[in-house]
Parts: sequence; C-alpha cells; structure tokens
Amino acid sequence: MKVSQRVKEVPYSAIRKLTPFADEAKKKGKKIYHLNIGEPDTETPGEFFDAIKNYDTKRLGYAHSKGLVELREATSKYYKDRGVDFDPDDEIVITTGASEALVFSLICVSDLGDKILTCNPFYSNYHTIFRQIGVNPQTFDTHVEDGYKLPDYETILAAVTEETSAILISNPSNPTGAVYTEEEIRRLARVAKERDLFIIADEVYREYVFDNDEFISFAEIEGIEDRLIVLDSISKRFGACGARIGSVASKNKDLMKEVVKLATGRLAAPTIDQIGATKLYDVSTDYFEDVKNEYQRRRDCIYEELSKIDGVKVYPSRGAFYVMPELPVDNTEDFAKWLLTDFDVDGETVMVAPADGFYHDSDAGKKQVRIAFVLNCEDLKKAIRILNLGIIEYNKLKK
Amino acid sequence: MKVSQRVKEVPYSAIRKLTPFADEAKKKGKKIYHLNIGEPDTETPGEFFDAIKNYDTKRLGYAHSKGLVELREATSKYYKDRGVDFDPDDEIVITTGASEALVFSLICVSDLGDKILTCNPFYSNYHTIFRQIGVNPQTFDTHVEDGYKLPDYETILAAVTEETSAILISNPSNPTGAVYTEEEIRRLARVAKERDLFIIADEVYREYVFDNDEFISFAEIEGIEDRLIVLDSISKRFGACGARIGSVASKNKDLMKEVVKLATGRLAAPTIDQIGATKLYDVSTDYFEDVKNEYQRRRDCIYEELSKIDGVKVYPSRGAFYVMPELPVDNTEDFAKWLLTDFDVDGETVMVAPADGFYHDSDAGKKQVRIAFVLNCEDLKKAIRILNLGIIEYNKLKK
Repeated sequence: MKVSQRVKEVPYSAIRKLTPFADEAKKKGKKIYHLNIGEPDTETPGEFFDAIKNYDTKRLGYAHSKGLVELREATSKYYKDRGVDFDPDDEIVITTGASEALVFSLICVSDLGDKILTCNPFYSNYHTIFRQIGVNPQTFDTHVEDGYKLPDYETILAAVTEETSAILISNPSNPTGAVYTEEEIRRLARVAKERDLFIIADEVYREYVFDNDEFISFAEIEGIEDRLIVLDSISKRFGACGARIGSVASKNKDLMKEVVKLATGRLAAPTIDQIGATKLYDVSTDYFEDVKNEYQRRRDCIYEELSKIDGVKVYPSRGAFYVMPELPVDNTEDFAKWLLTDFDVDGETVMVAPADGFYHDSDAGKKQVRIAFVLNCEDLKKAIRILNLGIIEYNKLKK
Repeated sequence: MKVSQRVKEVPYSAIRKLTPFADEAKKKGKKIYHLNIGEPDTETPGEFFDAIKNYDTKRLGYAHSKGLVELREATSKYYKDRGVDFDPDDEIVITTGASEALVFSLICVSDLGDKILTCNPFYSNYHTIFRQIGVNPQTFDTHVEDGYKLPDYETILAAVTEETSAILISNPSNPTGAVYTEEEIRRLARVAKERDLFIIADEVYREYVFDNDEFISFAEIEGIEDRLIVLDSISKRFGACGARIGSVASKNKDLMKEVVKLATGRLAAPTIDQIGATKLYDVSTDYFEDVKNEYQRRRDCIYEELSKIDGVKVYPSRGAFYVMPELPVDNTEDFAKWLLTDFDVDGETVMVAPADGFYHDSDAGKKQVRIAFVLNCEDLKKAIRILNLGIIEYNKLKK
C-alpha cells in the first residue's frame, strides 16, 4: 500500500512551490510583492454579486450537466459578437474552470500514453493534468530573444510523432505573454491538418492583447472546425477566478457528445456561480477596454523597469499579464527562494515563479522567471527595484 | 484524428441516459414522476443563502487550493462531534463535489491499469471516472434477496488480485440503500489489511440511516488509519447538490500531500460556495433529524407499495434514499424506455434508472432498477401504482 507512481511524478506547482518560504517570511514581518500568481487584482463586475444576491430559491439543485442554458446562450452570443459561431445547445459545455475543460478535452482526444504537442515554455499546470490522465508532453522550443514567437513550420512538424494526438496551445500565452499572429496560428493549423491532429486552443487570456493588436482566435481559421477545441474561462475575462466557471467549445459534434458524457459523470458545475457568470456577459465593452488599458500600462512599466537591469533579457509582452525574462543568475529557483529567505530591502522582498517548471526536457527555464504583472505600476516599480538589488546581492554572494 | 478509445468506452450515465425520451414525453404533455435522479427535494438551509448574500467583496479571488480554512475547520468539527479526528490543516482538502474527491483519491492510490475492488452493484458514475483515469473495476457480488449485504470474508478476499490497489465502497450505499454493520465494515478492513490495500470510503449519504440504526464510519475502525480515505459532500447532507462542495480526508499525511498537489493543479474549489457551505455547519441537529424522518417515511411508503406488486423482489432500504428492486420484466432498460415512450396512466408516467449500468461483468442489473425516493409519499404512491400498471401492460405486450 503506497501512493501511486504517477502522483509522485506530478510536479509541485511552479507557481506555488515556494509558498511555504513566503509564509515563513511573512511571519517574520517581511512584506512580499507577489509577482508569482496570475490572479488579477481588478474588481469583479458588480453584476456577478447582484445576480447571486437576487437569486431566489429554496433549494440549491444541480445545474444541467452541460451548464445552465442561459449561460451557454450568453457564451454563444459572446463568441458571435466576435465573429465565431458555436451553438449553445450542442457545441458548448460549461465546466468547472478552464482546468476541467482541459481535462475533458484531453480525455476525449488521447488514450493512455499518447503525446500532446505544446511549446516550451508552457503553463505549468498542464504538467499536473498530463500526469493525472496518463498522457505525456512533447515540445518544440520558443525563445526569450524574440519574445517567444513560434518556430517555423518544419520545426513544429518535426516535433510530431506517431503518438501525437493533439496540439495544445495557450494564446495569449501563459507564461510568456506572446500573442500569436494570424500567420503563426495558420502555421499550427497547417501542421495539425498535415498530421491529422486535434488542436486544443486555451484562449482564456483573449481579452488581454496590447498595442491595439487584434486577437485572432483559432476558431476564426477556416478548415479546422472539426479538429478544434476552444477552452475558455470567465476567471481572467471578468476578474472572477473564484467562480471556477469555464467552458469547452467545438464544432465537432461527435466530440462534444463525449464531452457531455464526461460532464454527466461529475453531475454539474456549481449552480450559483453559473447564475452570476451569466449576468457578467451583460457588462459593457468599456469594462474590457478599461481593464486592458490598465494591464497595458503595467506591461509598459514592467518592461521599462526590467530593461534597466544589467544582464536581463526581456521583451514587451504582447498579451496576457505575464512576461518571462531571463535573469543574470545561475539558478532562478535558488534565487527566488533566497529572495524570500535571506533578502529584503527595508523589510520588503519580491516573489517570482522560477521558470523551470514551465519546461519539458529543457534547461532554459533555469535562468528564467515568470512575472505576473498583477500589481499597480507603483508597486511593480518597487518590486522590480527590489529584484534588481537582489540580483546584485545574490551574485556577490555567489562569487 | 478521432476521439479516444477510452472516452468511447465511457458509458452513458445509467441515471440520465433515458433523458432524451423523457424530454420527448414532456413535450407531448406527459407528466413524469422522476425516480431516476438522486437529488433531494428538501430545502437547503437558509444559512447557505444568507452567507452568500452577506459576503462582502469587490473581487472574487481564488480560494486556497486546500479549501477555505474556515470550511476545513467546520468540516473537522463536524467529524469530531461524531468521534472522528481529522486535522483541518493537513488531513482535509475541500473538493469540487465528492466526484473530484474520488478522482483525486483514485489518482493517488492507483497507476494506469490498476484494479479497484468494489461491490456489484456500485454507483454508476464510478464507471465514468475509472475510464477517465485509466483504472478498471473488479467486483464481488451482493444480492437483492438479502438487501445487498456484503458477502463473507473469503468471497471478498478471493476477488482481490495482484493488480488491486484499493477497495472503494459507498456506505450508505448508492444504489442499493444498504448500510453496512460494524461487522461488515471490519470484514472489509480485514481484507484491506490482509492484502495491503487502500480503502476509499464514500460516505456522502451518512445522514440518511433509518430505523434508529447507528451509522458507523470507516474512520471509527482502529488500525486502518493509514490506508483510509474518506470522501464526503455537503450535497446530500444539506440538500445542496448545486454547490459542488465535497472533501477528501485521510490521516495518511504522505497521501494528503499528494492530494494537495492535485488540488493545486486545478487551483481551487469555488469560493462563494465554500462561504455558504461553512455556514451550513451551524445548522442545528434537528435539521438532520427532520430530513431523516421524512426520508424514512418515504422508504416505508415505497417499500409498502413495491411489495404489493406481483413478482417484484424488494427489501426495506436501510439508508441513503435508494432501493434497487428486481422487477418481473425481461429487460429493465427496454421497459424503462417504454414507460416513457409508449405508456401513461391518464397522461402520467414514471422514470426509473435501469440497473445494468450499476454492474460490472454481471447480468443481474438487467432485471433491476434503481429507484430514488425523492418525492413526497403521495407522489411516490402514485408513481409506483403507475409502475405496477406498466409492468402488467408491458408483459402483456411481450407475450
């Protein structure tokens, strides 16, 4: 009687593994600027709370396994307003966060031992989910020097093997902040068609695209409708992470029938959160614009501050609220831990996510960190100045 | 590019597979008595809704991955009041329903291809979850004639193989309404110790035990602390199915660390529902007593009515709100479908869950149905009278 090998192989969250050291530091009175967790600090629109407060029932029953019909309709309308057509009845299923949407999608496209192609670096929680359901990642590399653009067609194609069942891609990218151009998206689509793969497009950061660039969804690309699964969530879109409401959408009706089977097997997503989520879709488009502008200011601010640090390789993020710079230290996990345990500037320090956990079969992450710009500009500036002083001090000690 | 073999093998929910026929019947104006779904019709205590209405925040953030500390403490106190000790800090993790608690537990105790021992019949959604995570059921039989008591020690032991990693048991039982005696529980514990297996005890129906019998939790049995995982939920306990709040508890701290890793990988259970769930634990014990008495009346009523039907094998359920009788028809799936499509009594019919989907490697379910007594006595009586007339009519047609 012992715990399974597969669960032992599940890595500790790259984003939260240093939390015990942070807790210890806080106990000692240190103030910590958290750049490690991608949770927006923006307010959730009041429509959510109003809907919940006005929900009048005596009995909190299961929602429909596919999700409340009014939420599926609101989600469908949201897509339609953006030129994408998903039928609320049989092409959208509401899930408990995009995490569950990913689990359902992967189970539908992969058998045990199959490979899922994604790019290095990728969202670290994908690791956890791959292990749980018995599939393995395979990757092609992207690089800090060009802001993590996709490699050319041949490089991506060469990464596909007989065991590959799907391409999984986060766009805008968690953890890099890359936003793929229409040409890059068509490149991935071409690989998928050439090698007959599913595409799982994790588009939860779609509202966060900077510099007036347009977000291009995989769902806008013709000719891949049958092989495309779109994952989405209200967490980032409406600053409502705690609701745990996501969705999976596909025009492949055979596949969606299987998703419904899995959805039925866990009964339903939470009812009250779906009630609130439905009303969020009434929020005016100004809301998205305001939030995007705020994060763009932060992007500008963090890019400017990081650029000032000697030896840092950085680029302006194009979307999401992440940047993954390379730092001039030998090992970012050691460094990030040291920032919490042994360093402070006037009682303040900073917490970042070491990037190693965002990679598969690569050492590139050992010199990188993921920074989430989820603080206001003033705090971001303070945090990056502390990071700068930390780098200097850490490297002195290492000599 | 095609959907995976494993998802194709996921069975359609035995409980909901006939829903399209029910929808069709409703469109034609038929009234349907739903005895197929195990969702209590009792009111959710107002404490839940009050807590949510009073929750004052501007930003709906992630809860702790382990669950809100106040909910873990309330859960721990609930157990303590019943003589069971689980530390809120490192022996309890809050999950999105007991469904997620089961997924986490199974991943922690089993590698791909492992076998999970359970009894025939078992809760049909276990099938769905086994398929998803790559494990297989193995079973020992229980029988309608004695109300689905557990078989003797040797029979259970003989069902264990080298590949078995855990025993999974629902007590009180969904789908049979059996409640295991202390002796039966010790029998399973003895097998687990003898063959070094984990025990996953699904105790979500623990409040529903009739005839002044005492509910014995596996957690009360000494000597199995390290191998025991208890699954629980507020869904049935407080008539709050839509909240999707469950828990996994174990004194095996190594195992609970792995559960936390999995919990971190999906970020958190829904925040607002946890806020509501916490306050449910303030409900007076009268609440449980009232609900239990109501379901006991229904149990009496359904047992009495079913006993009147010629050729039905039935027994008084000891707990939960299910009974799984054998009906005098050749195939209960055909019969249950026919009740919806081709039969009514003055425009009314009844929906039951054919039992085949609750079995593994056995034909016993083809003559049985699961009946959930989640209607008031008057409606239950009407429903069973319709069932009786249906059996007579169906068998006439079959001749």
